[in-house]
Amino acid sequence: MSPTRNARVLFNSVPTGFPEPGKTTVYDDTKTIDIEKANLSGGFIVKTLVLSVDPYLRGRMRSPEVKSYVPAFVIGEPLVSHGVGVVVRSENPAVKKGDHVYGFLSHEEYSIRKNLEKLEIIKNEHNLPWSVYVGVAGMAGQTAYVGWTKYSKAKKGETAFVTTGGGPVGSLVIQLAKLDGLKVIASAGSDEKVKFMKSIGADVAFNYKTTSTEEVLKKNGPIDVYWDNVGGETLDHALVAANVGARFIECGMISGYNEGGRPIHNLEFVFSKSLSMNGFIVMNLFPKFHNEFYATIPAKVASGEIKYTEEVTSGLDKVGEVILSVQKGLNKAKAVIKVAND
Amino acid sequence: MSPTRNARVLFNSVPTGFPEPGKTTVYDDTKTIDIEKANLSGGFIVKTLVLSVDPYLRGRMRSPEVKSYVPAFVIGEPLVSHGVGVVVRSENPAVKKGDHVYGFLSHEEYSIRKNLEKLEIIKNEHNLPWSVYVGVAGMAGQTAYVGWTKYSKAKKGETAFVTTGGGPVGSLVIQLAKLDGLKVIASAGSDEKVKFMKSIGADVAFNYKTTSTEEVLKKNGPIDVYWDNVGGETLDHALVAANVGARFIECGMISGYNEGGRPIHNLEFVFSKSLSMNGFIVMNLFPKFHNEFYATIPAKVASGEIKYTEEVTSGLDKVGEVILSVQKGLNKAKAVIKVAND
Repeated sequence: MSPTRNARVLFNSVPTGFPEPGKTTVYDDTKTIDIEKANLSGGFIVKTLVLSVDPYLRGRMRSPEVKSYVPAFVIGEPLVSHGVGVVVRSENPAVKKGDHVYGFLSHEEYSIRKNLEKLEIIKNEHNLPWSVYVGVAGMAGQTAYVGWTKYSKAKKGETAFVTTGGGPVGSLVIQLAKLDGLKVIASAGSDEKVKFMKSIGADVAFNYKTTSTEEVLKKNGPIDVYWDNVGGETLDHALVAANVGARFIECGMISGYNEGGRPIHNLEFVFSKSLSMNGFIVMNLFPKFHNEFYATIPAKVASGEIKYTEEVTSGLDKVGEVILSVQKGLNKAKAVIKVAND
Repeated sequence: MSPTRNARVLFNSVPTGFPEPGKTTVYDDTKTIDIEKANLSGGFIVKTLVLSVDPYLRGRMRSPEVKSYVPAFVIGEPLVSHGVGVVVRSENPAVKKGDHVYGFLSHEEYSIRKNLEKLEIIKNEHNLPWSVYVGVAGMAGQTAYVGWTKYSKAKKGETAFVTTGGGPVGSLVIQLAKLDGLKVIASAGSDEKVKFMKSIGADVAFNYKTTSTEEVLKKNGPIDVYWDNVGGETLDHALVAANVGARFIECGMISGYNEGGRPIHNLEFVFSKSLSMNGFIVMNLFPKFHNEFYATIPAKVASGEIKYTEEVTSGLDKVGEVILSVQKGLNKAKAVIKVAND
C-alpha cells in the first residue's frame, strides 16, 4: 500500500491575545505515513476519528517556562487534545486492530503510540456517536460530573447558578442539578443556547450579553451553588447573590484567558457568608469516579434522560478557526472536529 | 446602698473610614445603677470585668439596612462584644452571685440580664486570668481552633503561611500548626510581633511592612495552608505561592474593612491549582467544638504549652481608642479592656 497523507496541526507561535489561525497554529499536509510498513516497535497506529476543542487549550499555548497544570504545547509539534480514534494496525498484544481508543490524541490523521498511556479502550455498548465520547461522555461531561458530585453538596430545594450553561460542561451541570431537585438559573451567550438550556430543564435561563446577570440573580437568588466557568464580573455578582454557606465550584474562568485576569472585588463574602470555593482539575480527580461515570452517563445519554448538543466541524484544517471560536464563545455547542469516518 | 456609677460606651454614628473615638463611639458616665434595689424581673446583674476588642467590630458599625453575619450596632445603644463578668446579684436560680459568665456583654460597667442567652458560666479550673477567656481561650482562640481543625487538613511536613501571626487568632494558629508538625511562615506588622512569633515556634517570621511578602514566599514556599486574616495583596501573593491542592482558610480580610475591599487579581489559581477556600464564622461552627476546645486549650495555656500575649488597657473610656488601634493594627497583642477588678 502506498503512503497515505498524514496531515496535522502544528503549534506555531505563542499568542498574546486570542489565538490566530494560521499563525498560532498551522495546518500542514506535507507528511505521509505508510500504514502497512511504518515501524511500530511494538506499538500501534491510531487513525483519528474525532478531536475535542476545549477552552482550556488556550492555557497550553504558552511559553514552556510558565508552569501550569497541563504542559505547554511545543512549537513545531502537533497540538494535543482529547479524541477518539480507531486502531488500524497493532503490534501491541493489549490492543487489537478495530479497537476504539479515547484519550489524549495528537492532532494528526494518524499517530503511532507505544502503549495505552493516556488512552483507554472504549466499548461503546450503547452504540453512541464517537463524538459523544469527547463531549457529554468525555472530559467535558466528566468535569461536570466530578465537580458536581464532589463539591456541590446539593440539597433538594436549593438554587444553583450555572454559567456557560449552553456548553458541554454547563449543560450537564444543569441536568445533574435538576436530577438533584434544585432550582437552576443558567446563563449563556446566545439566545439559541438560552432555548437549549430551557429545553434541558433550567428554570431561569438568560443571555448574559443582553440581560443583566446582577438583576437576574437579585430576582431569582439567593444562590446555594455557583458553577463558575467564567470568573470576572459574573463571579463578583455571584458572591453578592450567595446565600450563607453557598458552595462555589471553580471550574474555569474563561473571561480572563485571553485578556488577562479580571480582578475580583467581592471576595470578602467568602468569610462573611461562610462560603466554600473549590477549584479542581478533572484529570486529577476522575480516576476515582471513572467506573461510576461510565456505568451511568452513556446509558442516560442513550436513553435520552441526559441531552447534549454538539457542533461538529469536518476537517483537521479547521482546528485553528474552531479554537478561536471557542475562545470567543461563538461556538453554538460542544465543539468537535471530525477528522475521519470510522 | 446608694446608686453606683454605670458608665457605658455608646455607638454614636456610622463611620465612613476608620472609626473615630468620641464621634463613632462616645463614653457616657451619666447613668447609675442601684445594685441592691434594681428591678431584675427574675434576672441577674453582671459586673463587667474584661471586654474584648476585635477586628470584626468594625463590621457592626454600619447602617442597619446593610445585612451581614452579625447585627449592626444600634445608634445610641452600648456597643457589644465578648467579655467576662461576675454576677453580683441574681434572682435567676440557674445563676448564683459570684458566678463568672463569658459571652456577649454590653459595654457597660453593670448590665442586667434575664437568662444565660449568649452567655455561659465559666469555671476557670486552671485559675487563669479572666482576660485569657476573651483571648486565647475566648472567641479569638476558638476561631483559630475551629478554622484550623476543620479546614487545614494539615499533614506533617507541609508548610503553612499565617497572617497576623502576632495577634490572638494567628498566634494560636502558628502553635496549632507547629503541634501538627508543619513548617510555619508567619507575618505581622511590627518587629516586636516578629519576635513573639519566633518565640512561639514560627520557622520564618517577618514584618510585612519592612519585608516583601512576595520574596519571603518565593524563598520559603510553596505553601500548603494559608491562614488569611488580611485579604488584599497578601492573598494575591499567597495564591501565587500556593502548592497544588493548598487549603486557604478565610478568616478575615482586615485590609479591606476601612478602605474598601482591595481587588484580587490571582483568583484563577483557585481552579488551576485545585485550591480550596473556606470562609467561616466561628459563632456558627463553635458549638460542635465547644467541649473539646474547653477540655484542651485552657489546660495547655495553664501548662505553658500554648503561649499568648495580650495588651490590656484599663477603663471603659478607652474603648474608642483601642478599637481604632486594632483597626489600624497598632495594638501589640490581643486587645483587652479591663473594666473592673474581680
